[in-house]
Amino acid sequence: MIDFRSDTFTRPSPGMLQAMLQAETGDDVFGEDPSVNKLEAMMADYFGKEAALYCPSGTMSNQIAIKVHTLPGDEVVCSNLAHVYIYEGGGIAATSGAQVQAITGDRGMITAAEVEAAINNPDDVHKARTSLVCLENTSNRGGGCCYDWEEVLRIRQVCNRHNLALHIDGARLFNAIVATGQDPRTYGQTFDSISVCLNKGMGCPMGSVLLGSTAFIREARRVRKRLGGGLRQAGYMAATGIYAMENNIQRLEEDHQHAKQIAAALLEKTFVGHMLPVETNILIFEVTGGEWTPKKLTDHFRKEGILTIAISPTQVRMVVHLDITPDMVAKTCQVIAETM
Amino acid sequence: MIDFRSDTFTRPSPGMLQAMLQAETGDDVFGEDPSVNKLEAMMADYFGKEAALYCPSGTMSNQIAIKVHTLPGDEVVCSNLAHVYIYEGGGIAATSGAQVQAITGDRGMITAAEVEAAINNPDDVHKARTSLVCLENTSNRGGGCCYDWEEVLRIRQVCNRHNLALHIDGARLFNAIVATGQDPRTYGQTFDSISVCLNKGMGCPMGSVLLGSTAFIREARRVRKRLGGGLRQAGYMAATGIYAMENNIQRLEEDHQHAKQIAAALLEKTFVGHMLPVETNILIFEVTGGEWTPKKLTDHFRKEGILTIAISPTQVRMVVHLDITPDMVAKTCQVIAETM
Amino acid sequence: MIDFRSDTFTRPSPGMLQAMLQAETGDDVFGEDPSVNKLEAMMADYFGKEAALYCPSGTMSNQIAIKVHTLPGDEVVCSNLAHVYIYEGGGIAATSGAQVQAITGDRGMITAAEVEAAINNPDDVHKARTSLVCLENTSNRGGGCCYDWEEVLRIRQVCNRHNLALHIDGARLFNAIVATGQDPRTYGQTFDSISVCLNKGMGCPMGSVLLGSTAFIREARRVRKRLGGGLRQAGYMAATGIYAMENNIQRLEEDHQHAKQIAAALLEKTFVGHMLPVETNILIFEVTGGEWTPKKLTDHFRKEGILTIAISPTQVRMVVHLDITPDMVAKTCQVIAETM
Amino acid sequence: MIDFRSDTFTRPSPGMLQAMLQAETGDDVFGEDPSVNKLEAMMADYFGKEAALYCPSGTMSNQIAIKVHTLPGDEVVCSNLAHVYIYEGGGIAATSGAQVQAITGDRGMITAAEVEAAINNPDDVHKARTSLVCLENTSNRGGGCCYDWEEVLRIRQVCNRHNLALHIDGARLFNAIVATGQDPRTYGQTFDSISVCLNKGMGCPMGSVLLGSTAFIREARRVRKRLGGGLRQAGYMAATGIYAMENNIQRLEEDHQHAKQIAAALLEKTFVGHMLPVETNILIFEVTGGEWTPKKLTDHFRKEGILTIAISPTQVRMVVHLDITPDMVAKTCQVIAETM
Repeated sequence: MIDFRSDTFTRPSPGMLQAMLQAETGDDVFGEDPSVNKLEAMMADYFGKEAALYCPSGTMSNQIAIKVHTLPGDEVVCSNLAHVYIYEGGGIAATSGAQVQAITGDRGMITAAEVEAAINNPDDVHKARTSLVCLENTSNRGGGCCYDWEEVLRIRQVCNRHNLALHIDGARLFNAIVATGQDPRTYGQTFDSISVCLNKGMGCPMGSVLLGSTAFIREARRVRKRLGGGLRQAGYMAATGIYAMENNIQRLEEDHQHAKQIAAALLEKTFVGHMLPVETNILIFEVTGGEWTPKKLTDHFRKEGILTIAISPTQVRMVVHLDITPDMVAKTCQVIAETM
Repeated sequence: MIDFRSDTFTRPSPGMLQAMLQAETGDDVFGEDPSVNKLEAMMADYFGKEAALYCPSGTMSNQIAIKVHTLPGDEVVCSNLAHVYIYEGGGIAATSGAQVQAITGDRGMITAAEVEAAINNPDDVHKARTSLVCLENTSNRGGGCCYDWEEVLRIRQVCNRHNLALHIDGARLFNAIVATGQDPRTYGQTFDSISVCLNKGMGCPMGSVLLGSTAFIREARRVRKRLGGGLRQAGYMAATGIYAMENNIQRLEEDHQHAKQIAAALLEKTFVGHMLPVETNILIFEVTGGEWTPKKLTDHFRKEGILTIAISPTQVRMVVHLDITPDMVAKTCQVIAETM
Repeated sequence: MIDFRSDTFTRPSPGMLQAMLQAETGDDVFGEDPSVNKLEAMMADYFGKEAALYCPSGTMSNQIAIKVHTLPGDEVVCSNLAHVYIYEGGGIAATSGAQVQAITGDRGMITAAEVEAAINNPDDVHKARTSLVCLENTSNRGGGCCYDWEEVLRIRQVCNRHNLALHIDGARLFNAIVATGQDPRTYGQTFDSISVCLNKGMGCPMGSVLLGSTAFIREARRVRKRLGGGLRQAGYMAATGIYAMENNIQRLEEDHQHAKQIAAALLEKTFVGHMLPVETNILIFEVTGGEWTPKKLTDHFRKEGILTIAISPTQVRMVVHLDITPDMVAKTCQVIAETM
Repeated sequence: MIDFRSDTFTRPSPGMLQAMLQAETGDDVFGEDPSVNKLEAMMADYFGKEAALYCPSGTMSNQIAIKVHTLPGDEVVCSNLAHVYIYEGGGIAATSGAQVQAITGDRGMITAAEVEAAINNPDDVHKARTSLVCLENTSNRGGGCCYDWEEVLRIRQVCNRHNLALHIDGARLFNAIVATGQDPRTYGQTFDSISVCLNKGMGCPMGSVLLGSTAFIREARRVRKRLGGGLRQAGYMAATGIYAMENNIQRLEEDHQHAKQIAAALLEKTFVGHMLPVETNILIFEVTGGEWTPKKLTDHFRKEGILTIAISPTQVRMVVHLDITPDMVAKTCQVIAETM
């Protein structure tokens, strides 16, 4: 099967497995795991942040960041499509006791003007106190789109004026960096905290890294322990992250090319309606007209050995990743071409 | 000053003060306050609910109800203008650990179709579990509008199908009951829990009552104690509630007539733009054209001895209540007529 | 009935009721209630604190203070008999997300050495972070005993060294002040926050006041709103507090004398075992030997028109208060003398 | 260095690493990781429980169990030495909003009588509602001691009578099972939920498993996702757990023998005071008399290549595990013998 359901399905390459096997490890709860320490240092350097923390998952990285930035009764501003809001089990409320003001943005992206309009009067005790803005880049539900950097800088300015923290959910931040050619340190300079995932296009079995100031990460380490994210010989997994940082970033460009190829094949077809702009490795398109529905289309593709997901009553999503070879892309394009 | 800022500014009438002074009281934490017990029984009977609980404020009644109906990590569906969401200090998240899915409804009212579309798949662990729907009647930010009862019944059916609880924030429920001529027991039959305020049009200094089943109120009593809402000789305040139930419900009709009179005066003026339909005791209108802004208009009215509130950069709100006499309404209409 | 069950059963005197009836009031949520404002100012001045906040109950005052002083995951150090820990519905955990380290002290009082030994290493992420110490004076479960002031000052020094906040649950602080002859401002100088109750020996129907710095009370006001403690024309109740401050403090001395008289009568009897030292208005004694049990003794007293409480399988408690007249004390002593 | 600091320092054996490398994996968030599924099924079968859930750490397993068994405002009964209470970052309060009633038991173990005495009256709204009892077996801070099974059964009966859930923190449950020769299914029959660690004597790099009924695990899976414990290709780590279940249980007996050998060597020495009974793989002893202190002794051992921990101002702890060979034990005994 050619699996386009998600880039979370990627499996380690032989080189990555070898790195895992040979990892130097220790007890990370005691700070003695050399591979974890190395990965955290690498990541901090890459983004130009003071400190980093290895976490079991992106959900944990995000939720720890939100916890450290807020108090119970605070309000978090984000898109109504934000992963932190709709796909993390209500964690913002349950773990942080914070309320969400969800903005209906464009493809999961929000503007500085929308952020500013969402901020509550801090002197009004009726209102939850706005304390954090969360962006997501690339935006998953927005079809892997990338923020306009000028808008991000304007949001930063709004945060500065209103004394708000700014976090980025970078589950697919490496895709954005490769697609835009940005220096990753501009992220470090702009955001108070960054979470990145290693288990998506980067190809690791698990793991995420949270970045911030030394003081922020000290608090984050405490919250990680409390949530049960303190591992022991985490180095076996961290070693896959080191491998990914050294080998798998630039190759994301290949996924983006593959996505564009598949998009071109799809756009030839009458059953494909509006497609969100394909900026990185995600394709989201409407299924229209005739007899096709998302359900029928995904069933048809499955019979042809291709796994996709119907993410709404009208939309299908495909995610390209490092286990998708050029041959698989060619095969996929051919199946699409032959679908009537 | 003629104070239209809110119906929370009402002060007890001489009759109500007398009732307060003569109240029979005891220690309500021990269940020994006869006035509290009488008010709770009266309220339960009025709405046809098994049990009732006297609370210091409407915010506490609402937040207790939400707490009892939900678990941390659950999701509450309500309007994006709901008082429980925007004016209760982020309590849904802080006190209940629950997340809000806020629907952009019509004047703070939501439909059965919107509720149904908002319900998360209960088997998807990524999603907060939908467990409660909150309506508000009348809707404060909707200009005191009243729900179409057929829509309420359809929402009840959606809740039944999806096993959701249904709570009504009835801060101004007596206004809705008087305006629509409904039997209050239809509310008791339709909602799992009801909160009503005594300190708005009912004229009491403070207090709210929460209604529900015996089991629900038993849990609510526990939560009330934990939040610090267990009072001692609460009977002095409860006695004002008994007085209000006996004397102040039908007279809300007078407030509604006064509101319509003022609306008529306002609609004569060119500086008054869109006005939300005046169904009960609240007027919300846009200030348009010429030199008038909400700020300037409220300042002008203040100089004329009339207090109003600019609730947005374009809107002014006036709330009529039992301290507004026919003479004050006449004076107000005259000031409006003379404003150019 | 002569009611010794608790000083929460006191009812307002005619003078207090008159003060209530004549109270000047407004909407306290808007800060416009003159009686509330006056009571808060009086209290702040009395204790020499910057600011004060009127709350519906002592439980709410205490829980707000704990909330403002702590973060979720913090640890609070207090006696294992502390009201905040055992009688406030688990509020420290539920409302503040903080853990309790309960010290088995002496009659509900703890020492500086015990506090210091209880402090967790702040650098160990396994441990909850110690951030607050709560004392209770007088100690309810300790039979109304008063802290040795030198010990309190040593606890303050421990808190200073370890950067901990120090709160006092002063449900019966006026009793301690009268019994020890202390200047109330020494409390203001020593504690970061103070809660006092108005509905015990002070004779008000309800109400409590929380004291602290201006910044602390600003936060407390926000939490009060979220918990539902923001009232409207709270002035009717606050006026009883003003009356109590002006009339009822020194008369607590009379309650203490009454308690000593009753203690003397009890200590004549063979069925009375160990009695906690009677320092203020509470008597707690063991029922021993012969056929008497706490249950039988309270039943017997009840038949004689005297209400007392069996607070454990071996102990009876009696609380003296302003509704207990010298005649009632004489009658009570006579009943005790005649009990065989 | 010979590392007796903790059995969390164990590193995978070559056989375990091989199992890790060859693991069949998938995306466990989608339930498609065969190794995770196999480990969960193995564990459920081993303990005779309906269902199991793989978690990143024992802290997460425990905290999820506590969350599912309690509501905010509930009370958990456990030993004052319980890991869930003192070493999990205040998680019971922060994650579950529940309060702890900590019993001063014997070496971290509590009795049925103590549990029964700790249960609050469920009808008293002043009291947190008792809903869960947590035992720990073996008890870490109790020197690896094992519960008397008859006492456990009596505790189960108390829980049944009072409708309380019963959870066991089995971080070292395999040690207890091997030491006592019990059938693991008796645990499954007796406890509502069980957590076991794979990263201690079992030798895995990380991981824990939570066991319970199907309904319990369904809820636990939801909480795991929210806390960030949902991993992707978790199979690499789960495969080490399968290997441990197949190879490392019985060999714990060897650790216990080693611990007894070292205990014998220590008990020859005058600087060794009271030693907790050595029932499994942990030694805790007082350092007494002469010039030795825990600090000096651990420093001395370190110079001799032996790592131990001073766990209190008077006590040293040593933990034996699968990386401690017979030669290391011999060397350790010799160093002890030569220490004067």
